[in-house]
Amino acid sequence: MSNAIDELQAIIAELKSELEEQKTCTRNARERIERMSAEVVDSNPYSRLMALQRMNIVKDYERIRDKAVAIVGVGGVGSVTADMLTRCGIGKLILFDYDKVELANMNRLFFTPDQAGLSKVEAAARTLSFINPDVRIETHNYNITTVDNFDKFLSTISESGMQQGQPVDLVLSCVDNFEARMAINAACNENNLNWFESGVSENAVSGHIQFIRPGDTACFACAPPLVVAENIDERTLKREGVCAASLPTTMGITAGLLVQNALKYLLNFGEVSDYLGYNALNDFFPKMTLKPNTQCDDRHCLQRQKEFQERPKPVLQQVEEVSDEPLHASNDWGIELVADDAPVAEQAPKATDTANVASGLRLAYEAPEKEAVDQAGHAAAGDGMPETSLEDLMAQMKSM
Amino acid sequence: MSNAIDELQAIIAELKSELEEQKTCTRNARERIERMSAEVVDSNPYSRLMALQRMNIVKDYERIRDKAVAIVGVGGVGSVTADMLTRCGIGKLILFDYDKVELANMNRLFFTPDQAGLSKVEAAARTLSFINPDVRIETHNYNITTVDNFDKFLSTISESGMQQGQPVDLVLSCVDNFEARMAINAACNENNLNWFESGVSENAVSGHIQFIRPGDTACFACAPPLVVAENIDERTLKREGVCAASLPTTMGITAGLLVQNALKYLLNFGEVSDYLGYNALNDFFPKMTLKPNTQCDDRHCLQRQKEFQERPKPVLQQVEEVSDEPLHASNDWGIELVADDAPVAEQAPKATDTANVASGLRLAYEAPEKEAVDQAGHAAAGDGMPETSLEDLMAQMKSM
Repeated sequence: MSNAIDELQAIIAELKSELEEQKTCTRNARERIERMSAEVVDSNPYSRLMALQRMNIVKDYERIRDKAVAIVGVGGVGSVTADMLTRCGIGKLILFDYDKVELANMNRLFFTPDQAGLSKVEAAARTLSFINPDVRIETHNYNITTVDNFDKFLSTISESGMQQGQPVDLVLSCVDNFEARMAINAACNENNLNWFESGVSENAVSGHIQFIRPGDTACFACAPPLVVAENIDERTLKREGVCAASLPTTMGITAGLLVQNALKYLLNFGEVSDYLGYNALNDFFPKMTLKPNTQCDDRHCLQRQKEFQERPKPVLQQVEEVSDEPLHASNDWGIELVADDAPVAEQAPKATDTANVASGLRLAYEAPEKEAVDQAGHAAAGDGMPETSLEDLMAQMKSM
Repeated sequence: MSNAIDELQAIIAELKSELEEQKTCTRNARERIERMSAEVVDSNPYSRLMALQRMNIVKDYERIRDKAVAIVGVGGVGSVTADMLTRCGIGKLILFDYDKVELANMNRLFFTPDQAGLSKVEAAARTLSFINPDVRIETHNYNITTVDNFDKFLSTISESGMQQGQPVDLVLSCVDNFEARMAINAACNENNLNWFESGVSENAVSGHIQFIRPGDTACFACAPPLVVAENIDERTLKREGVCAASLPTTMGITAGLLVQNALKYLLNFGEVSDYLGYNALNDFFPKMTLKPNTQCDDRHCLQRQKEFQERPKPVLQQVEEVSDEPLHASNDWGIELVADDAPVAEQAPKATDTANVASGLRLAYEAPEKEAVDQAGHAAAGDGMPETSLEDLMAQMKSM
């Protein structure tokens, strides 16, 4: 009898040990770290980031811990965006999505097959906390485009920053449809929040990011969004019911360009691109700047434009608002922001293609409503969208 | 007594159940799939890749299952490269590295803190097999630069392709030092294998990929490698003993550009870039082509150059060898391969900066040995590296 008990206890000991081993593989692998250290040891997860200071790229890297970023859409682009910001040690991430992980998502980075069926925000939060327990993760599992949820979204991005009651520092749009982009646009115009829009084409071989500063640059309602020109019909950014192609490469590159520009903005280094496109077929990366439409349908956009116009001049001060210290020395080359050597699409211009967009780009779709008003709006957007080079800007500043 | 046994058995049952639950989280989450299906259902991990055919981007996507790719270096770039190819459903991956995962690697994508201490190839193989059990993964945990290991490396890439005895379809260099790049270069010249070199700068804000086709383009020994010009001293690609800065963004973008171009090459779509640089500070992406150095130190390179010269002309046929069907319609734009609007670095030219490289680029370092011989070599490399545009190439072809 006591023999049997010994045997059973041996089995228990073995099972406990096996369970402990299994848990080691899944539990948090490191404790939280109070302050980022620049110490060069293998056990320091921040040594290679803090080295950005020694390399004279970033002045104060640890400021990233004071930044809160909202990511709307945690799919192919949004999940990698969250992963990158988490590994960079961002202070707080607020994730919005209402979709579930499916095996059909496995051709993009981040999610794993065992997560199929979980909500994307929950699966992402688990993985991100495991990767870096120092990042505060908040999840919102709902569709932001319904009336009630839009209000929740609006109050969250304006009050759930690093300090309660403060807005987030940046909103990143990683959604795949027009309505969600318009909702983010409306919320950011109302709250006067800077945000980046991003997108990947249905054929998986082009993507773009766009930095929208209410009143300063075109908002999403000012002008139809641009896509890198290609020889396929791509009138919508994403249509309901179409099984879009996707690639981990294009999604990963788009997320990388998005986060890189977000880091430049948040940590004040380099030069943030206003619009950056990517065509995978020929490795073409057009850049441009879009001015706001003075006849934009969004009244908050018009209000922001008015405020922007009323801000003290000269232009130099406007530049300083974005970057409160001298631009990195590498920016003194006088790179043009426009791609005027860009290829010209072969297609004949469409009715809505009349806006003065950089060559190599075209409008993603015709706006879905108010045909007549829109035509006027587009014309105004066209007039209001001159191609501006950094050289021109520099020349303007020097002449003042 | 029998009461005690009941209790112990209850504990055992509970532990077994808990263990089963833990294991569910880590075991393979899906069975292998015999053939890629284009069926649009949430449970199909290949639906969004097969959609590339419906979108007229790739003619026969499933051919990717017949491709074997060697990845040398499974760090910040190599691990994401392997992840992307695995999610794309590549036939076989052969991974080479001799390093261990450390917490200091957590600022880049892919590895997780629980893997600290594991060999990079082993940790990567586990994760990759879990993500996609259809991919054959082979690991080699050694430094390819020692004499014995170099021979093993040489025979592996020439005999461990999809069919035993056949070479791999492509070699991707994701290493971080000069010696390893020279070893890959020597092996690929000897085996006449096409490969991509990749790299990220020590200050984390630039990267590049370079497609090397022995005899056709400059090999790594033909000319010092190029980096995107920046205002910091960057004489080596990676120096021993320096704690380089790194960012998940730059590494992820470089991996994305590498795999995207590898996919274009393997699946025959779009236009493969010969050299593509990335400067994160201003989102500048220079492109160029480097011709081989007729006085290259590598005798196999000279042999490949001779063979290439002796191949049947006209140029059109050479193009056809790479691409045996018409280029995608999007390539008819006549994009220039060179970045002749590129910014010019402010630094005074160095002794080795005399090679005729595209503006905005400069040589990464002075070659480490044989000063005198090298000076001659560089001069010759300079003479042999004209900037060729696709337009020029098209014009040449049309005139034949």
